[in-house]
Amino acid sequence: MTPVVIGVAGGTGSGKTTVVRSISSRIGEDKLAVLPHDAYYRDWEDIPPDVLNHKNFDHPDSLETELLIEHVKCLKAGGAIDAPVYDFKSHRRSTEKVRIEPRKVVVVDGILIFAEPELRKLFDIKLFVDTDADVRLIRRIKRDIAERGRTLASVVEQYESTVRPMHLEFVEPSKRYADLIIPEGGENQVALQFLFARLQQLSH
Amino acid sequence: MTPVVIGVAGGTGSGKTTVVRSISSRIGEDKLAVLPHDAYYRDWEDIPPDVLNHKNFDHPDSLETELLIEHVKCLKAGGAIDAPVYDFKSHRRSTEKVRIEPRKVVVVDGILIFAEPELRKLFDIKLFVDTDADVRLIRRIKRDIAERGRTLASVVEQYESTVRPMHLEFVEPSKRYADLIIPEGGENQVALQFLFARLQQLSH
Repeated sequence: MTPVVIGVAGGTGSGKTTVVRSISSRIGEDKLAVLPHDAYYRDWEDIPPDVLNHKNFDHPDSLETELLIEHVKCLKAGGAIDAPVYDFKSHRRSTEKVRIEPRKVVVVDGILIFAEPELRKLFDIKLFVDTDADVRLIRRIKRDIAERGRTLASVVEQYESTVRPMHLEFVEPSKRYADLIIPEGGENQVALQFLFARLQQLSH
Repeated sequence: MTPVVIGVAGGTGSGKTTVVRSISSRIGEDKLAVLPHDAYYRDWEDIPPDVLNHKNFDHPDSLETELLIEHVKCLKAGGAIDAPVYDFKSHRRSTEKVRIEPRKVVVVDGILIFAEPELRKLFDIKLFVDTDADVRLIRRIKRDIAERGRTLASVVEQYESTVRPMHLEFVEPSKRYADLIIPEGGENQVALQFLFARLQQLSH
């Protein structure tokens, strides 16, 4: 059994997570392995906190993509993996890991997953969730204030200094590698019906 | 039986026709009615040939969209229609018509079908075939020279004077109404698999 590997990319706040949740609720967790690219953030042990606070977490180099590639290859070969766990508060990789067994469908999600040629090659299906930048910004502001206790000023500062420039440099150009572009993501019921129909075939 | 109405839009040379042919070969002609928007070009009986040669056929007003809307509504209601036939050589509507019986799936294709709010409302599924402008231009040049006996100069002249400006004004902005965007169109096998999976459900 070779699993189907699906990449779900798109900018911050585009609706990737909602799409992944829809996939998960549709085909069931027993058939699905989900690998979020941002679980593979590098462990920043040697960086002082004041530098860390201004680090560019939206640049491809901030992620240990080579480990993710290794893990996807392992799952494709029918093996299990121990995925890293990242602590977003301390910006450190946790000592614990999550065992992920091989599944019929493997979903990898992240803003930068189509920007990496070696990773991109591993996807059987490349979905890009495409949502207008202002809508994505509104979602990001709401989420970071409500869930992460951030101030509006700090969210906007980060957005202007790293999120937006990295989106334009890496995320947006990687859209051209998509097999299918889903406007608005998880809110787009018509597109989800297509996704479900194909997943039903693939996860049988 | 209320049919499913699918709109297939995209710029000139984007690959719309290949997508429609793929749909047709997959679900069979007995279940499908295809209405090309460009069969609904207005009948230019009063225009002298030299004016006609420089007419803007890429502007929405050049098409009798109100008749197409009426026909789609009729097919949705389970009725048959007599679709117009357009003669692209004489730029006249033919005296013959084509009877189209009600079918499970109705496909409407054309560059401008999502630019018309009244027409857009009638689609259950809106697909936009998205192909880079230079690739589309190459296809258009090849097609118009090979199939329509045009010169390169005249194809480029028409492209610059009407095709491109109308694309930027009407076609490209209408992409935002799409439920699903298919990069490269008919060449995109991964996307076609999604399309076929959903069509199989809908045409059962």
